[in-house]
Amino acid sequence: MFEAQLVEGKTFKAIIEAIKDLVVDCNLDCSEEEVAIQSMDSAHVSLVAVRLSASAFSNYRCDRPNSLGINTANMSKILKMLGKDDSITFKAEDESPDSLTMLFEGGKSTIADFELKLMDIETEQLGIPDTPYQCTIQMRADEFQRIVRDLQVLGDTCTISCGKEGVRFSVTGAIGNGNILVRSSDEDKDKVTINMEEPVELNFALRYLNFFTKATPLAENVVISMSPDVPVVVEYPIEEFGHVKFYLAPKIEED
Amino acid sequence: MFEAQLVEGKTFKAIIEAIKDLVVDCNLDCSEEEVAIQSMDSAHVSLVAVRLSASAFSNYRCDRPNSLGINTANMSKILKMLGKDDSITFKAEDESPDSLTMLFEGGKSTIADFELKLMDIETEQLGIPDTPYQCTIQMRADEFQRIVRDLQVLGDTCTISCGKEGVRFSVTGAIGNGNILVRSSDEDKDKVTINMEEPVELNFALRYLNFFTKATPLAENVVISMSPDVPVVVEYPIEEFGHVKFYLAPKIEED
Amino acid sequence: MFEAQLVEGKTFKAIIEAIKDLVVDCNLDCSEEEVAIQSMDSAHVSLVAVRLSASAFSNYRCDRPNSLGINTANMSKILKMLGKDDSITFKAEDESPDSLTMLFEGGKSTIADFELKLMDIETEQLGIPDTPYQCTIQMRADEFQRIVRDLQVLGDTCTISCGKEGVRFSVTGAIGNGNILVRSSDEDKDKVTINMEEPVELNFALRYLNFFTKATPLAENVVISMSPDVPVVVEYPIEEFGHVKFYLAPKIEED
Repeated sequence: MFEAQLVEGKTFKAIIEAIKDLVVDCNLDCSEEEVAIQSMDSAHVSLVAVRLSASAFSNYRCDRPNSLGINTANMSKILKMLGKDDSITFKAEDESPDSLTMLFEGGKSTIADFELKLMDIETEQLGIPDTPYQCTIQMRADEFQRIVRDLQVLGDTCTISCGKEGVRFSVTGAIGNGNILVRSSDEDKDKVTINMEEPVELNFALRYLNFFTKATPLAENVVISMSPDVPVVVEYPIEEFGHVKFYLAPKIEED
Repeated sequence: MFEAQLVEGKTFKAIIEAIKDLVVDCNLDCSEEEVAIQSMDSAHVSLVAVRLSASAFSNYRCDRPNSLGINTANMSKILKMLGKDDSITFKAEDESPDSLTMLFEGGKSTIADFELKLMDIETEQLGIPDTPYQCTIQMRADEFQRIVRDLQVLGDTCTISCGKEGVRFSVTGAIGNGNILVRSSDEDKDKVTINMEEPVELNFALRYLNFFTKATPLAENVVISMSPDVPVVVEYPIEEFGHVKFYLAPKIEED
Repeated sequence: MFEAQLVEGKTFKAIIEAIKDLVVDCNLDCSEEEVAIQSMDSAHVSLVAVRLSASAFSNYRCDRPNSLGINTANMSKILKMLGKDDSITFKAEDESPDSLTMLFEGGKSTIADFELKLMDIETEQLGIPDTPYQCTIQMRADEFQRIVRDLQVLGDTCTISCGKEGVRFSVTGAIGNGNILVRSSDEDKDKVTINMEEPVELNFALRYLNFFTKATPLAENVVISMSPDVPVVVEYPIEEFGHVKFYLAPKIEED
């Protein structure tokens, strides 16, 4: 039996909203420690990794590890019905369950329960090495979202360079070019922390960065970790309880 | 001469907005007692009945009963110009009038007057028997709207069953199924009153229930009346002055 | 060298938004006194004239008059990235510059700079005679916008008649007709001032009036100046610093 109640149901809703444009089908991997999702996007360009610790739930019970295969669009349809302050209780059988039951309860006179059909999804769990990064940038998630969205009007590829003066996001395109420089700042409202061992400059597809920023409602800050020649990590920490991480390989410049 | 002023012009606007997706052309039936509309929807599946008592108007004058045939989409276009706090004064000749004059007046320096062309519409007035119903449910109109809208993502047909524990709205579809249970509640903000003689369970097309909920802005509460094998009545009472009622026959289950 | 900082960058953004649906390409004519735009719309029906006095800028420097040919849609794309409280610093070389540099700076940890490619645009500067008008109407810009937008649902041509009782906007169309009368008013919130030597009645294409009202965010009031047989002027004064003016020839009634 898997059974767990998430008091802030909207966190789960925000996770599904964050990944559903990237990932069509995925497993909810439930274990004693956590509910996790790991999936390449449908074009096999980026990787999504979600973790919700068992401690994020009330009454967490997972008798044996189980992979619940969901279609994210269908899950999203059901979560549309979640009230703003509703909790979600998940329930599934241990032995190849056909469906995942979800109970939405608020303080109101209404209770809703849904059964989402499950499917078998073949996946290969990728081991992600926990390497140190040469640059780590922490900034407001909504500011990162704005930069990525804005720069898309200029071109497809964004150069992110982390150096002494700060982090520079640059795009060159047909109508001109643009640079947005974000500097370290201790201002409370607008804090930017940059840890840099060596300057790093990498190119990324704005289209994917833009997908990642769908996770903005989950976290106040985003953490961007970069080293030369390895995928960038764009992490949205979910306060106390887990994270949504996106990995994207840099574009190789053609000469 | 028909002449009448509705101080809260927005009530008339909300009525037209509530019915215009269902009813293309209809008569405003003006008499000494009331302005009324009765019309099948264009697919002849549901029935709309509107009543605005003469007492809802100031300076109500209707020298002889008259049917003013309007196109609801055109009426809606003109009502788009109604200011939030404007009154509407209606004027029409007695003898087969060509047009209905409407005057929009607010407290401001602006007065607007419009003439909407009228048309001849053949209708047959249906006598609606005023029968008692086995179940009558009164609940917040916006909550009913939310349930109907939400369940539409799961399927086309909604089973409404009224029993001891409350009213259950159920839908079964390709991606899974859902139930929303609404229980009696005395909470002021979220009051639900259920009067039940016998349990009733009926199936309805969600598409039509959804059309009906366009009347939500007209009333805080909706009253749903059901008996086996007869059309459900979904009533939006207009405080003191009338109502908008929708009738919809239940779907017959195929075996 | 042309270099100038506009502290309220959003004013420039609002100007470009106001004209970009009418004018595809235009010159920013920079001189010692002002930055100006003058252009026919792409269908050569109306004329747009913008003026921003040098005094609107800080650190204004224009060594020699220069015409910077921009595409308004591309300029608008870049201005999408302007923060709400950002200033804009413009920079361009004197000798046939390839690009216009714009610096967006707010109080925040972020600085953005953009280079917009410039183009050569052939224009013929039209001398606009500064004639007195028989009627001048000053009214709230948002009220004028509402009237123009509302009346469009009735027809294509609006008759504006200025007479003793006020200004009447009239439209006749297939579904009926409408008149909106705006009277002089001293009310602070809703002030309407009408200066009339002789009554004037002219017909205009609502489509163009509607384009002009894109300038509504620039000014609290709009000033409409009319004389028989000459183009109407719809002016949006930019407080202290300039204006956006639109000129539109009246429609000739066919008999």
